[in-house]
Amino acid sequence: MTNVTFTIKQIAHILGGQTEGNPNTVIDKITKIDAGEKGGLAFLIDKKFESYIYTTQASAVIVKDDFNPSRKLSCALIRLAQPQQAFVKLLQFYENLKPQKLGIAKSAHIPKSTQIGVGVYIGEGVVLGENVMIGDHVKLYPLCYVGDKVHIGDNSILYAGVKIYDECKIGSECIIHSGAVIGGDGFGFVPDENYVYEKIPQLGNVIIEDNVEIGSNTCVDRATFSSTIIRKGVKIDNLTQVAHNCDIGENTVIAACCGIAGSAKIGKHCVFAGQVGVKDHVVIGDGVMVGSQAGIHRNAKSGEKLIGSPALPVEKGLKALGSVQFIPELINRVNELEKKLQELNKS
Amino acid sequence: MTNVTFTIKQIAHILGGQTEGNPNTVIDKITKIDAGEKGGLAFLIDKKFESYIYTTQASAVIVKDDFNPSRKLSCALIRLAQPQQAFVKLLQFYENLKPQKLGIAKSAHIPKSTQIGVGVYIGEGVVLGENVMIGDHVKLYPLCYVGDKVHIGDNSILYAGVKIYDECKIGSECIIHSGAVIGGDGFGFVPDENYVYEKIPQLGNVIIEDNVEIGSNTCVDRATFSSTIIRKGVKIDNLTQVAHNCDIGENTVIAACCGIAGSAKIGKHCVFAGQVGVKDHVVIGDGVMVGSQAGIHRNAKSGEKLIGSPALPVEKGLKALGSVQFIPELINRVNELEKKLQELNKS
Amino acid sequence: MTNVTFTIKQIAHILGGQTEGNPNTVIDKITKIDAGEKGGLAFLIDKKFESYIYTTQASAVIVKDDFNPSRKLSCALIRLAQPQQAFVKLLQFYENLKPQKLGIAKSAHIPKSTQIGVGVYIGEGVVLGENVMIGDHVKLYPLCYVGDKVHIGDNSILYAGVKIYDECKIGSECIIHSGAVIGGDGFGFVPDENYVYEKIPQLGNVIIEDNVEIGSNTCVDRATFSSTIIRKGVKIDNLTQVAHNCDIGENTVIAACCGIAGSAKIGKHCVFAGQVGVKDHVVIGDGVMVGSQAGIHRNAKSGEKLIGSPALPVEKGLKALGSVQFIPELINRVNELEKKLQELNKS
Repeated sequence: MTNVTFTIKQIAHILGGQTEGNPNTVIDKITKIDAGEKGGLAFLIDKKFESYIYTTQASAVIVKDDFNPSRKLSCALIRLAQPQQAFVKLLQFYENLKPQKLGIAKSAHIPKSTQIGVGVYIGEGVVLGENVMIGDHVKLYPLCYVGDKVHIGDNSILYAGVKIYDECKIGSECIIHSGAVIGGDGFGFVPDENYVYEKIPQLGNVIIEDNVEIGSNTCVDRATFSSTIIRKGVKIDNLTQVAHNCDIGENTVIAACCGIAGSAKIGKHCVFAGQVGVKDHVVIGDGVMVGSQAGIHRNAKSGEKLIGSPALPVEKGLKALGSVQFIPELINRVNELEKKLQELNKS
Repeated sequence: MTNVTFTIKQIAHILGGQTEGNPNTVIDKITKIDAGEKGGLAFLIDKKFESYIYTTQASAVIVKDDFNPSRKLSCALIRLAQPQQAFVKLLQFYENLKPQKLGIAKSAHIPKSTQIGVGVYIGEGVVLGENVMIGDHVKLYPLCYVGDKVHIGDNSILYAGVKIYDECKIGSECIIHSGAVIGGDGFGFVPDENYVYEKIPQLGNVIIEDNVEIGSNTCVDRATFSSTIIRKGVKIDNLTQVAHNCDIGENTVIAACCGIAGSAKIGKHCVFAGQVGVKDHVVIGDGVMVGSQAGIHRNAKSGEKLIGSPALPVEKGLKALGSVQFIPELINRVNELEKKLQELNKS
Repeated sequence: MTNVTFTIKQIAHILGGQTEGNPNTVIDKITKIDAGEKGGLAFLIDKKFESYIYTTQASAVIVKDDFNPSRKLSCALIRLAQPQQAFVKLLQFYENLKPQKLGIAKSAHIPKSTQIGVGVYIGEGVVLGENVMIGDHVKLYPLCYVGDKVHIGDNSILYAGVKIYDECKIGSECIIHSGAVIGGDGFGFVPDENYVYEKIPQLGNVIIEDNVEIGSNTCVDRATFSSTIIRKGVKIDNLTQVAHNCDIGENTVIAACCGIAGSAKIGKHCVFAGQVGVKDHVVIGDGVMVGSQAGIHRNAKSGEKLIGSPALPVEKGLKALGSVQFIPELINRVNELEKKLQELNKS
């Protein structure tokens, strides 16, 4: 957190709320209500945590405007109509206070063929290839590599050590985290009769549309030809593999450690939990929800909710996975039934 | 794709085929038959896509030499004896048109102790340790790190940001993708009676033989002593872990997000799908096929086909995994049977 | 291995043991007993490998002091009270012989605001942000990025290409392997009514306590506010995801390819095998053991042993997972029972 201090009066003004207690109470951090400390501002959003407000060490707590304390409070309050929205708003306010990186480092390698917008940050040790286009207010943190003919749209941020292979296109307002690799070769080979694999050249690229966030050390491979596409608003967490020729639909969210195999097509506003696997060429509709560690081996219709590997509809899957533990007992019961039935037949 | 144009007559000549329609039809890209566009060259390999050839916007389509259109075509044709092989051949032709990187960047750090072959590319910001040997025509893309005493064989390519720890050996004709880490310490510790773990030094190395491809952000750990070995022709996809002292046999193919634990020995020309786990010290024979997300906890004989976790032979495994969904129903049926049998016994 | 030679007399002296055979036998490597070679020193720790000692090509073998050969040996011996401890001790001895990196490379970017201890190594192409604190004897290998206000404690090592985001704290005696990313943004978004996700700024940091080792390409995300904490003595293998606000307890060991979701709290000296997933907000007690590929969706008490997904106690889980293969047969048997019972009822 930035080391800046505000009075709760100032914060109430920013968030559009009312103070209660000393309006000059000084805040220098956001804190949890159950582990608060002096100078901390906590949130009471979920009523089940109310008991903590009477014992918190936080200097102030943001509460709903109709909050009615049942005991005496030692903290000041900020009363708001919508404390939950205020949480994000306050974090954004603090975020915006951070000093912004600006300027082009001497040690950055920037060929003459580069087109650069205004207000950019290009950090130490960044290496650009030939004919790169960098939009306005782009930030390239140190030690990024941007290959030949790559385009990066306005306001996008590449954190330290991102690698973008030749000819990939990154949209505007994108965030790509450290160590992510965009545009590596798709995994394509043809075996001969002696099992020696010949490489299929991967001549396509990756297109990342606007407002996409890609996590640390995630990989998005280039298409064999044409493009692997990450559509606008997609959010992909860390350490996820998106293989060649995939097409990830708008506003789909993919948690960490997933593996999406080649040519899979995923619809809009799907939500994938962590460690999910998707088979190659599978087509997944819009709004599909997938539980952690699921394995999707078949197409899925819009709105399906899937869990397990191989994946099942969620109600069926929950019952099935929950009953695996009863198989040994079931075997015993069937043994017993067979024995009894045999005895019955004899008698 | 490189921005070069050819007539279909030129392409037919390269591939050894016959044109039909205007031989001067200009091609500037490879395209899909179902989404073709002007200037595009599409392939009709699988007969089930034949209907697209009558509606495609592609300027030309490569077809089998005996293709007999049932309707009028608006695209030109190139007729070939083996369109499938031509696909790879054509991609390789385009790949070879790409301008090749060459020369040693000023900002690369190359100690005097380095031995360098002819025709190399060493990009901006590359850092070599002491006593490194770089073969002929090697390409080290920007920001690679190559530790002390590392050898890299002829014609190998390390893409941007690859890290090779000290003393590892990379063969000839290898491709290592961005962010891969070769030779990090194996994960070895001994706990004392207070659960404090003491590090077991990892003094071995990694040997990568010829013609190996290693995916983006994949990790191959060095051996405790001796060597972790990736044998010739192995292809490993992105984000895969190969632990210390593993031995991966010739021409084995491992898809993305797999985890191969310490000292596992995998045979020749095996094929692993994505997200597979292999237990430490497991020995897997030649030609073993492993389905996605499988967990291999025991040795596997040559030719086995395994799926599931713990892994089962594929026929058994398919039936078993496919029947998990019926367990809840099965429990109900056994309940019912027990009730009926009790009633029968009473009567 | 370092290219240094010792006589077995010297090695016996280092380890506190007795030689048998020629005390001037020269050793230049550690080797396996079953694949020994001239100049190699092997270990016979596990009695089941005894047969190899009679055929090994190793020049010398370390044995327990009471070892009584049943046949003639061609190798020399070093007899020790505790050969197993000697293994680690000998590896550490060799490790300490390695030349240590020292000094600050010219191409490293070190702002004036940096505080640097004595005896440090800062390699080529390292980039430090503003107000970084580097303790004594710290080693930053080439091409590391260390963000603003990061602290790194004494004797810690960051291998090539590690990226540390702003404001994270790394303790003393830590080892962080190549490509690891510490302090990337946690994965937090709020959707609006059109499924457009707004980013929740991630303003916290990561605190890594003393004596922690973090594997290659592993990611530890910063907290939304406050800190993601990796407590002292924790060992995390490669390619593992630790999400925002997690708290990993002292001396816990996590193997490769695990995914620990947001705000999970893991106790002390737990042991996780590879590819394990932990759901967000789950609380896991001390000394919990988790099998490979397990999925932990609920809190776990101290001392629990868990396998499977969803995880079950180990005895129950082993039986259940081992019986999945019998479900198809079980269905047939229940079909049969139902048929027979129906016939019985008719008669």
